[in-house]
Amino acid sequence: MESLQEKASEWSGVETDHAFAIDDTNLYQKLGLQTFINLSTNFYNRVYDDEEEWFRSIFGKSDKEKAIQNQYEFLVQRMGGPSLYSQRRGHPALIARHRPFPVTQEAAKRWLHHMQQALDNTSDIDHDSNIMLINFFRHTAYFLVAGVEQKNQSLHPCKDAPGRHPCKNF
Amino acid sequence: MESLQEKASEWSGVETDHAFAIDDTNLYQKLGLQTFINLSTNFYNRVYDDEEEWFRSIFGKSDKEKAIQNQYEFLVQRMGGPSLYSQRRGHPALIARHRPFPVTQEAAKRWLHHMQQALDNTSDIDHDSNIMLINFFRHTAYFLVAGVEQKNQSLHPCKDAPGRHPCKNF
Repeated sequence: MESLQEKASEWSGVETDHAFAIDDTNLYQKLGLQTFINLSTNFYNRVYDDEEEWFRSIFGKSDKEKAIQNQYEFLVQRMGGPSLYSQRRGHPALIARHRPFPVTQEAAKRWLHHMQQALDNTSDIDHDSNIMLINFFRHTAYFLVAGVEQKNQSLHPCKDAPGRHPCKNF
Repeated sequence: MESLQEKASEWSGVETDHAFAIDDTNLYQKLGLQTFINLSTNFYNRVYDDEEEWFRSIFGKSDKEKAIQNQYEFLVQRMGGPSLYSQRRGHPALIARHRPFPVTQEAAKRWLHHMQQALDNTSDIDHDSNIMLINFFRHTAYFLVAGVEQKNQSLHPCKDAPGRHPCKNF
């Protein structure tokens, strides 16, 4: 799966060391819990109000408040704060948890459009943090496109009835 | 996927707050890089020499040195050190990366047997760190059993030819 990283960089235009520049500092200490709550609230308000029905519908079956909590807890944990996400839900397991959703290039682009808007419109996110976060998000979005695509391609459908091991060659 | 966490606790006998007690301290600072390299080397030496062929064969197609590097880089990153793993390979994506392997309850048990041996036989791992690490590993092993099982069950095989979207109901 080494190529996930390469695909993420190629498709996002963000090199790995820029994507993970978030680890050279502690954005949780710098920005604080409330800023991440505000960012995720701002982001999902935009997503759930998106005029693009195809994109809005991806989130249609998910509770908005839960989506906000999942995201800010993950971000707090990933950006150097307490492991709120793992304490409640376990490992982020980013590809597996996105597996039920149509994570296409088009969806990644729309997701990033809203995230950039949210970053630009959340108080207390300084210019440098904004850049670091959007680089992380850009790389991660396309990492997920590559990861979910790879998962789907790894399937070997067959004629057998559904079950845990559907194919001999699975 | 909330139930992954519940299954992991139930099957491992390790409550979530014990599994993630690793985050209450910084085991990387406490133990240092070399200890994690030694632990992973010790662990995989045991795995690749396992007398149980069914277990040894799970790792048969993977390069031992790469397996060691993947593991210690992940551990260093997860235990509060530099993000060596993400810089090289991206997000851990634990479930997705284990997806090609038969992560059964039996395999988790055998994996944990070797890890306990490795923890007990690696210098500089004090008693408290040993307990914290094995709790993390126990919970994580069964989290992966639950996660990989869930992925497999989510498949909907059909009669169509292999492709990116093999089934209408996929």
